[in-house]
Amino acid sequence: MKPINVGLLGIGTVGGGTWTVLTRNQEEITRRAGRPIHIVKVADRDLELAKKLTAGQVAVTDDAFSVVSDPDIDIVVELIGGTTIAKDLVLLAISHGKHVVTANKALLAVHGNEIFAAAQKQGVMVAFEAAVAGGIPIIKAVREGLAANRIEWIAGIINGTTNFILTEMREKGLDFDVALKDAQRLGYAESDPTFDVEGIDAAHKLMILAAIGFGIPMQFDKAYTEGITQLTGDDIRYAEQLGYRVKLLGITKRTDAGIELRVHPTLIPEKRLIANVNGAMNAVLVKGDAVGPTLYYGKGAGAEPTASSVVADLVDVTRMCTADPHQRVPHLAFQPDKLSDLPISPMDEVRTAYYLRLRAKDQPGVLADITRILGDLNISIDAFLQKEPAEGEQEVDIIMLTHITVEKYINQAIIEIELLPTISGKVTRIRLEELNS
Amino acid sequence: MKPINVGLLGIGTVGGGTWTVLTRNQEEITRRAGRPIHIVKVADRDLELAKKLTAGQVAVTDDAFSVVSDPDIDIVVELIGGTTIAKDLVLLAISHGKHVVTANKALLAVHGNEIFAAAQKQGVMVAFEAAVAGGIPIIKAVREGLAANRIEWIAGIINGTTNFILTEMREKGLDFDVALKDAQRLGYAESDPTFDVEGIDAAHKLMILAAIGFGIPMQFDKAYTEGITQLTGDDIRYAEQLGYRVKLLGITKRTDAGIELRVHPTLIPEKRLIANVNGAMNAVLVKGDAVGPTLYYGKGAGAEPTASSVVADLVDVTRMCTADPHQRVPHLAFQPDKLSDLPISPMDEVRTAYYLRLRAKDQPGVLADITRILGDLNISIDAFLQKEPAEGEQEVDIIMLTHITVEKYINQAIIEIELLPTISGKVTRIRLEELNS
Repeated sequence: MKPINVGLLGIGTVGGGTWTVLTRNQEEITRRAGRPIHIVKVADRDLELAKKLTAGQVAVTDDAFSVVSDPDIDIVVELIGGTTIAKDLVLLAISHGKHVVTANKALLAVHGNEIFAAAQKQGVMVAFEAAVAGGIPIIKAVREGLAANRIEWIAGIINGTTNFILTEMREKGLDFDVALKDAQRLGYAESDPTFDVEGIDAAHKLMILAAIGFGIPMQFDKAYTEGITQLTGDDIRYAEQLGYRVKLLGITKRTDAGIELRVHPTLIPEKRLIANVNGAMNAVLVKGDAVGPTLYYGKGAGAEPTASSVVADLVDVTRMCTADPHQRVPHLAFQPDKLSDLPISPMDEVRTAYYLRLRAKDQPGVLADITRILGDLNISIDAFLQKEPAEGEQEVDIIMLTHITVEKYINQAIIEIELLPTISGKVTRIRLEELNS
Repeated sequence: MKPINVGLLGIGTVGGGTWTVLTRNQEEITRRAGRPIHIVKVADRDLELAKKLTAGQVAVTDDAFSVVSDPDIDIVVELIGGTTIAKDLVLLAISHGKHVVTANKALLAVHGNEIFAAAQKQGVMVAFEAAVAGGIPIIKAVREGLAANRIEWIAGIINGTTNFILTEMREKGLDFDVALKDAQRLGYAESDPTFDVEGIDAAHKLMILAAIGFGIPMQFDKAYTEGITQLTGDDIRYAEQLGYRVKLLGITKRTDAGIELRVHPTLIPEKRLIANVNGAMNAVLVKGDAVGPTLYYGKGAGAEPTASSVVADLVDVTRMCTADPHQRVPHLAFQPDKLSDLPISPMDEVRTAYYLRLRAKDQPGVLADITRILGDLNISIDAFLQKEPAEGEQEVDIIMLTHITVEKYINQAIIEIELLPTISGKVTRIRLEELNS
């Protein structure tokens, strides 16, 4: 069969990896796909870099728009990133009847509905395995591998930068600022780390996972996002003493009231496999009603791991480019006219357990006041840790783990606790998930 | 679109689970597949059971052959097991132009070449996600999700019975016989546990993983299989003291000389995620050249977890039943005319590290003799553990971990060590894999 012609937009880290993997494994990939997959045109703002990497083997341009309108190109691979030019390019490629492979989580989380609708109308595929958890084939697992299941929840370590920082904080006893600097020095964090450390990148990926898990449209503006910048080394140590690890989790859960969609630091029992996912590695835990819990682990970023997913999509699209649309896996796992209108639950209504740390005067009656406040709100305490006051200090750290309650109740409790004259400063609140049901 | 009609052969554990999952999640599965998937006929030797489970909703027969030749049936689900009648039924179904979904690892590992050739000729699909690691979508992950990669090796805990027994042995300090009885009492092991504890079931699954990972034909007779019946509580404890866990691993690896294909107890560093997969859970670690290591974890057996994979296959086959054969994923991941003729390496040539335990007289010169034997064979020692002799005993346990060497050299060393007058009894040899490269 004749080769499939690919136009590559962006030959930076992931684009370069895609070039490398497709070139190095060409023979093996052809044996799988049944026909060769050739990159025939590369667009990059850095023409010199593009020329150097491709060594004169293909046409190179700094005009990405000329690639998406090139009649010789079957599939456009968008690896530019961002939600402006990338959006124009993807929509234009679709309008020209081209299939699209993209690693752009922000683009899909924010503009996915428009993009998938356009693709549906044109009868083309938009594949996005590389958009979530890098090289882990999690989109395929949830969308196809678990197709028999009613997905109950998904919880993932889906940002390698923050997992690297949290691992450093725990293993070396560092505070956030120091661990962040380490991560930046080692290339795990960008000079402006906001997207990663504030949980925005994880929330983009979580939105995509929720969409394919529950068959809901993209609605990124409703995701709750809380980063790791406020975490202290103390909290990570206290959590460990109680048998927990702290991870930045993206959690999406189906409840009777709607879909929970939230990214935040989370205590997880240390005996869970996902609690032991360290460094920049990613892992996604998926609970289906038939299969139970399943976990998918691997590198969530980097040139070749991400390229692994880009090229897997290329193989899929190559096989299915001449197929009838109904033979293809729907973009969001469910037929486009069968999406769910389940609402996203407001954060106030989310049900979970909590880690609370507060600083109290070391005197009688403090605990009675706190437990009365919690009791009045029907919040029960699961575990309790009080540290001896340091020499010469009058105040102690009190740590409590609660049973499952509703977020608005814990927030009310915190307001009341902070008003107690025996409490100094703010109460630290970190959510806790057992991840076992 | 009109419903897909399924004939179910066998309504035991997995068959019953398949009925339950398809019925319970029918609405969600239809939203995914784009058309209803209906079981329209069930065959089972136990007619009463079949009637009871299906509650009179579909036709029931004790003649499975009447199902595979029924012109109304599009897909046959074979959940009878075994390699005799199941083989006849699958081949007959194929000859009638029906697609087949099966969970039968033994059938595919032993007769897969014949079955896939027949399916290829008839233009039908044989899907087998449920044959390996129950509910974990590992076939899809390796065959599609990692399609960009040159797979380097696969190592899996792919038998829940033995993993349950090994976990009990470690956590409760039990010997094999006691742990086996526990497993039998709790329903994790059959009354005749040979298939599980001797590693045969794991070897069937490993053969399938090797076939789709490397694109080699089935050649089950060349798999090396060693079970867990000889493991002692002592070995598990010593391994733990050295920082390792003992797991029954199926390992298949591509080397310059060929494909390694082996099932045996294996020491794994305890810090690896897969070393912490406990109880009856399964996990498969796959190393691809682009993606690096990826891990897939979940329930490897049981009614609904296995049904999860059966039904996922039904959804895939439903989508692709009208597609051109070249649009489908090839049975063994690579185009059938592009399979590899890489040979299976003889076990003597396998390269790995070893745990050796020997019982020696507590006297000078013993160690010098052993290290001389190892040194002459170019085997170097990585770690060493000598236990104090128990009160009143004259002999001590000596435990050594070697660096990577060749199996035939370690076997030669063991012969020579056992001939030493200071050594009593047999040398215990367990292979060791770092699983990090």
